[in-house]
Amino acid sequence: MRLTQYFLPVLKENPADAQIVSHRLMLRAGMIRQQAAGIYSWLPLGFRVLKRIERIVHEEQQRVGHIPLLMPTLQPADLWRESGRYEAYGEEMLRLNDRHKRELLYGPTNEEMITDIFRAHVNSYKDLPLTLYHVQWKFRDEVRPRFGVMRGREFLMKDGYNFDLTKEDALHAYNRHLVSYLRTYERMGLQAIPMRADSGPIGGEDTHEFLVLADTGESEVFYDSEITDLTFGDRTVDPADPAACQAVLDEFTSRYARTDETHDPAVFEKIPEARRRTARGIEVGQIFYFGTKYSEPMGATVVGPDGTRVPVHMGSHGIGVSRLLGAIIEASHDDKGIIWPEGVTPFDVGIVNLKQGDSATDSACEALYAALEARGLSVLYDDRDERAGAKFATMDLIGLPWRITAGPRGLATNTVELTSRRTGETVTLAPADAVERLAAIYAPIKAASYDAAVG
Amino acid sequence: MRLTQYFLPVLKENPADAQIVSHRLMLRAGMIRQQAAGIYSWLPLGFRVLKRIERIVHEEQQRVGHIPLLMPTLQPADLWRESGRYEAYGEEMLRLNDRHKRELLYGPTNEEMITDIFRAHVNSYKDLPLTLYHVQWKFRDEVRPRFGVMRGREFLMKDGYNFDLTKEDALHAYNRHLVSYLRTYERMGLQAIPMRADSGPIGGEDTHEFLVLADTGESEVFYDSEITDLTFGDRTVDPADPAACQAVLDEFTSRYARTDETHDPAVFEKIPEARRRTARGIEVGQIFYFGTKYSEPMGATVVGPDGTRVPVHMGSHGIGVSRLLGAIIEASHDDKGIIWPEGVTPFDVGIVNLKQGDSATDSACEALYAALEARGLSVLYDDRDERAGAKFATMDLIGLPWRITAGPRGLATNTVELTSRRTGETVTLAPADAVERLAAIYAPIKAASYDAAVG
Repeated sequence: MRLTQYFLPVLKENPADAQIVSHRLMLRAGMIRQQAAGIYSWLPLGFRVLKRIERIVHEEQQRVGHIPLLMPTLQPADLWRESGRYEAYGEEMLRLNDRHKRELLYGPTNEEMITDIFRAHVNSYKDLPLTLYHVQWKFRDEVRPRFGVMRGREFLMKDGYNFDLTKEDALHAYNRHLVSYLRTYERMGLQAIPMRADSGPIGGEDTHEFLVLADTGESEVFYDSEITDLTFGDRTVDPADPAACQAVLDEFTSRYARTDETHDPAVFEKIPEARRRTARGIEVGQIFYFGTKYSEPMGATVVGPDGTRVPVHMGSHGIGVSRLLGAIIEASHDDKGIIWPEGVTPFDVGIVNLKQGDSATDSACEALYAALEARGLSVLYDDRDERAGAKFATMDLIGLPWRITAGPRGLATNTVELTSRRTGETVTLAPADAVERLAAIYAPIKAASYDAAVG
Repeated sequence: MRLTQYFLPVLKENPADAQIVSHRLMLRAGMIRQQAAGIYSWLPLGFRVLKRIERIVHEEQQRVGHIPLLMPTLQPADLWRESGRYEAYGEEMLRLNDRHKRELLYGPTNEEMITDIFRAHVNSYKDLPLTLYHVQWKFRDEVRPRFGVMRGREFLMKDGYNFDLTKEDALHAYNRHLVSYLRTYERMGLQAIPMRADSGPIGGEDTHEFLVLADTGESEVFYDSEITDLTFGDRTVDPADPAACQAVLDEFTSRYARTDETHDPAVFEKIPEARRRTARGIEVGQIFYFGTKYSEPMGATVVGPDGTRVPVHMGSHGIGVSRLLGAIIEASHDDKGIIWPEGVTPFDVGIVNLKQGDSATDSACEALYAALEARGLSVLYDDRDERAGAKFATMDLIGLPWRITAGPRGLATNTVELTSRRTGETVTLAPADAVERLAAIYAPIKAASYDAAVG
């Protein structure tokens, strides 16, 4: 993409009403625009990151055998009366009436609807296990929306639901989601720590939240510092193997890590003092096992092996897709702007032309642009007629992980500069070598991709 | 995908309440489930087709330089008061209040919001031309939703908006959209004929609808039979070249083609009688030029070359993404089920194992499955323990364009059968040759794809 043909409305001033750094930077980098309290448009740069995150979520869900579908944003109130949650949900549920005065609501979550789909179409234990998920816009009418997309009202969430014959099978599904989530977050360059949590209005006893450590997190967290040494890495875990999934859960919950809701000071005190940590965390996902809480009242049963009907065991599992943009920025920025991890960056590399209009420099930049795209890399080429300082400031603000700087002086000796946004380190090398270097950097990112049905 | 691990709830009975064939077939093929009047869940098979159509739309928009973003589903009422449409829109607009009694609406279209984004961020004619688009869920509270996804209430639409300095530039954008739409529909296996239409509540003088001929179409159309001989094909049209785009518009509007709203019997009568046609059509898209209808009242102006502020010239351009599934089925089915064009099929090929459980047949099918996926083809492998008739009926119903049938008798001589869903023709050939044949059939489909930011 050539910047002169793009729509990247960066702001020079710090927006007055944005309280946290991710909100400020998303506004300044031209990623979002508020349309009403807690309701945002995703401008082109923000949309690209949103889609990259959504794609990773789809890929990792399908990698472990979960099946995508798509439920609508609006739901009939009657479905929620069946579970008893229509009245219980409170003012966060956005209720509305259509022209015929039928009661609808903008879905804040989908347990009822997916249970309805299941009971309508599944009849036998032979069709289990089954995990269905979707990535869809939700609405929660927060009393005080704030922090940009971190606590918006209209937000994009992946929510998945497992249906199993027994509690044991459902707990395997729970563990499988934990495995899948660890890999999902790591692909986004995030360390998200599973912490035992409170189930809230979803219900159930077993639940873990995934928290990203960041000073601006809304939750206070307590953990053993050894937990942050654990990484999922590129291990291969068979999603159909209960013991393998259980082992991952055991490993990642082997150290103390709790939110304030479940914090137990007596247990915490037993950790050696040097390893005790208190910090802030941003919740980016949650998994639940809630058994037959929905299947019993809503009649979601299957014929079991012995011929009798039994309610299915369920759980639900969410990832805050739009919120993740904020969480990633909170975890990865400096005073100049955003620093995108390679896995989610809106463009893989930026090109800064130091002397736009100079025909030799222009053609060198065009050749670089073409060579990078030919290697499957996405490129933002700053072809504006601007001074170098302004171009660098824009690149630093929007946070592409790599920048190539090309000017007449370097090109005279067939060199350009390749700069890491994260470290600031610059190497001088031939344009062709810069292309090779970047292709090699991104090779594992591209290889992690999985051909999933996302578009 | 192995069918035993998928969620494909096909129905044996014809649903009583579905009046048209696409609605019946989408229900029978397990593609959709109605959750409320005109509000549907997209079950896994339907979701796959929806995403393939959405992807083609994204690719073709970006091919001609249009920039994707994403606006929210809910909009503040005040924005619509600026254009005067809040009261004018009538009962089709779904209005609601949040917990603080602020007035919102579920967007039926986005002229106001995109104009708001433009006026906030664009200041100079130097930033033009600009065309922004999104693919987002909309809501129109139809008094009588019917025909499944063809006239639903919550529906997925691509809507794009051009911003230009002059009427001439905006008419080029209009023509560019027409070029892009012709290519878009052809990639979906559809012939969609541009017809001069009525602008309705969007406003403006210049507008064309794109209609697919089908007996169940809601519009009566009148045309010169020569129009159906025109195809866009694989021509290359420079989207930045006004004359080239105008030539395509001229060609595709050179024959009489009108809906009943704009039909002129006197002109129609001048066509030689043998070429006069009256038929039914399904509207699958519409393009509008409406000049300064929104930019003037909403203050969307730019500083022109002479230093004075002028309102921008705009148009809007829509494709009914979810409706297209219905339109394609109306145009392509037989009494056994759907016949998907290769460009939008949920899976490229189906495998029917005639003797599930027979180890030689099973392993031949597994090898085929792996070989097809290795060639980048998506496969639905019917590995159920069912008789051949039931497997054939399912494949015919869900309409995959190609089916490979493998059984012990054929495999004894190293052959399988490759059957075209459209023609019913079957060839007997070696499994490896079937793979090659299919890879060759799909090569142009894959080559037409464009690496766009869709996920």
